[in-house]
Amino acid sequence: MSTMSELRQRYSGLQARGLKLDMSRGKPSPTQLDLSAGLLDIPSGPLSLYDDPDGSKTDMRNYGGLAGIKPMRGLAADFLEVDPDEVIVGGNSSLSMMYDTINFALHFGVPGGTGPWGKIPSARFLCVVPGYDRHFAICEEFGISMINVGMDESGPLMDDVEKLVSDEKVVGMWIVPRYSNPSGQVFSDEVICRLASMQTGTDFRLFCDDAYRVHHLTKSPRKQKNMFEAFQQEGNLDKLLLFASTSKITHAGAGVGMMAASERNLEWYLKHKGYSTIGPDKINQLRHYIFLRSMDRIHALMDQHADLLLPKFQAVQTVLDRELGSSDLATWSRPEGGYFVSLDTKPRLAGKVVALAAEAGVKLTPAGATFPYGADPNDSNIRIAPSFPSVEEIEQAMEVLAVCIMLATAGQTG
Amino acid sequence: MSTMSELRQRYSGLQARGLKLDMSRGKPSPTQLDLSAGLLDIPSGPLSLYDDPDGSKTDMRNYGGLAGIKPMRGLAADFLEVDPDEVIVGGNSSLSMMYDTINFALHFGVPGGTGPWGKIPSARFLCVVPGYDRHFAICEEFGISMINVGMDESGPLMDDVEKLVSDEKVVGMWIVPRYSNPSGQVFSDEVICRLASMQTGTDFRLFCDDAYRVHHLTKSPRKQKNMFEAFQQEGNLDKLLLFASTSKITHAGAGVGMMAASERNLEWYLKHKGYSTIGPDKINQLRHYIFLRSMDRIHALMDQHADLLLPKFQAVQTVLDRELGSSDLATWSRPEGGYFVSLDTKPRLAGKVVALAAEAGVKLTPAGATFPYGADPNDSNIRIAPSFPSVEEIEQAMEVLAVCIMLATAGQTG
Repeated sequence: MSTMSELRQRYSGLQARGLKLDMSRGKPSPTQLDLSAGLLDIPSGPLSLYDDPDGSKTDMRNYGGLAGIKPMRGLAADFLEVDPDEVIVGGNSSLSMMYDTINFALHFGVPGGTGPWGKIPSARFLCVVPGYDRHFAICEEFGISMINVGMDESGPLMDDVEKLVSDEKVVGMWIVPRYSNPSGQVFSDEVICRLASMQTGTDFRLFCDDAYRVHHLTKSPRKQKNMFEAFQQEGNLDKLLLFASTSKITHAGAGVGMMAASERNLEWYLKHKGYSTIGPDKINQLRHYIFLRSMDRIHALMDQHADLLLPKFQAVQTVLDRELGSSDLATWSRPEGGYFVSLDTKPRLAGKVVALAAEAGVKLTPAGATFPYGADPNDSNIRIAPSFPSVEEIEQAMEVLAVCIMLATAGQTG
Repeated sequence: MSTMSELRQRYSGLQARGLKLDMSRGKPSPTQLDLSAGLLDIPSGPLSLYDDPDGSKTDMRNYGGLAGIKPMRGLAADFLEVDPDEVIVGGNSSLSMMYDTINFALHFGVPGGTGPWGKIPSARFLCVVPGYDRHFAICEEFGISMINVGMDESGPLMDDVEKLVSDEKVVGMWIVPRYSNPSGQVFSDEVICRLASMQTGTDFRLFCDDAYRVHHLTKSPRKQKNMFEAFQQEGNLDKLLLFASTSKITHAGAGVGMMAASERNLEWYLKHKGYSTIGPDKINQLRHYIFLRSMDRIHALMDQHADLLLPKFQAVQTVLDRELGSSDLATWSRPEGGYFVSLDTKPRLAGKVVALAAEAGVKLTPAGATFPYGADPNDSNIRIAPSFPSVEEIEQAMEVLAVCIMLATAGQTG
């Protein structure tokens, strides 16, 4: 063994080399990663496999990058009209970001809140109805009670909302602000301002699923107030969680989810998310960035989607108009975007109509699915999803639907 | 309006057409998905974009397929040596499958268990030490207490394990059965048999992270008893959850996670997982299937990894042998696979050594990281991760480490 002074000397010599090595994590080397080059087939372009958020040259193929890659966060910021620091991009599902947020809130509480939601007796959510079944299902799974709030053509009935959210037990509310699922409303600027300024408890979070933000069926989409800015101006940004994804822009099952929120909320989210994963699939984010690149390209792509969707939505209207237009048997939406037509039969008939249609070989969304607990108090709402079938199939199905409505109504009154 | 009998007739006519349409979900049509064809650049092959698990022609680009695509499940089954029905494939992180499982257990309890783990006072996990910090971090995040269990060269000290798991409050245990992180043990067949047959409460689940299953550094890897079969033979399959991923086979951040378990456990997992997502990224699963295809190809790829990793692991040994081999200042592992070398200093020195190394520009895994709560009772374990740096960098870093060990030991005794 060397003497103490020899060691000190040697150590000083090593110090003097000024090394900067990271031996701390078990990460494969770039050469190892090159072995799988065949897995990757991104069109070559100006963007390399390296992201450079902080000069650290993150390798897109390796671990890390919990908040997502810089170029895709930039595009998501343009998409949601927020700053890049105010948005993170994740895996293939924005639903899972919503689920995670509620799960974290149940275990740990939200920033500035009263504590874990799981310990708040009878914590509850407001649910604008009709709405999206997967939102309501998360609450039901976790035992969070749900309160229905109705809508008119401007969005949720804000007098009711304002009264209900003043209860501190109301910790959240689900909305789809543009082309609402299923009824197609574009929330008015007044509704957005009232949402942004309403009085709530400190736990409250507005879960804003902006799933159809650019999914127009018209060449001149209605302008809508920037919700993020509205909350910011009111000093209520911590109350807003804004979600979206590319699922209905690129590939439904292999897109990129995104979430915009206050810095405080994002920090909180990432802190807890970091226990479940080292990071999202950055290669898929890169692929999306290269493919989409700019809002101009996204809008051009969405125009192509609209060209395909419009004849289908028109087919729904044409057949329903022809079959039911001169009667009072049903009312239905004429959406300017989104993915659904919402139809209301007379009370207590939707279940019967759906069952009749099923027996005629037409599977519709189960009656009640658009309401919490699958329970439509009027049993009248039916969600029509025309995007997948062909125009001819839609025409046939709508005819079946119209006839079932007529039949069920007649059966009830006759 | 038509009369009742006219309607019935018309309805019968529609029924007679024998239609089979699905109007129930808002899914984009195949033609819409084609718009994004440029996003996709999978080498053409015998496999199309359609999976056929049940004759339903699942479109890989669209929503759905919570359990993963059939061909990748088949490959995962070969990989884990289980039946395809006994394995599911997910997103890019097996860690998140482990996290999800514990989260679901906390909220809802496990099949056959006593109820939600979150309601079991002082529920606890056994942690084989030294171990993987991200495993322990999940328990710490959720407030699940952890009990350390030591290891010898055959794996965990089974006398201790058997005594501890007989306590019904012990709901789980973390293991890495092959090339254990960080100390490199390959669990012996006897250990595997004793794990499979040990007496536990009904809540108990063994979280088996088989992260380095095929990550050999030798041409003649040791054979190991099939853990899944061992649990099956003992009638204890519900107690085993087996995780792995392609992260250190293809691209670390963009791989495919997998989980094998009893049918009952998988059903339970998927039921709860279905609230957080519509499905994993099937395109990435397909891409992986096309690239990896068979166990022969996986082993050939892993041989290439080994060719790159072996000189790095040898460099660690060479320098440590040269610097410390003739002394009793440290002991370290000589792993036959995996990603780490585990080194033990004399007691109460690891923290000092790591700090000294940091000051000399060598960042090591923080001392204590390989133990629950970051607390190594002996303050002696240091994890060395040689995969990322170059051989030359490793040689320099190991020299620094060795010198720091010598220095710290001398400082303590001198």
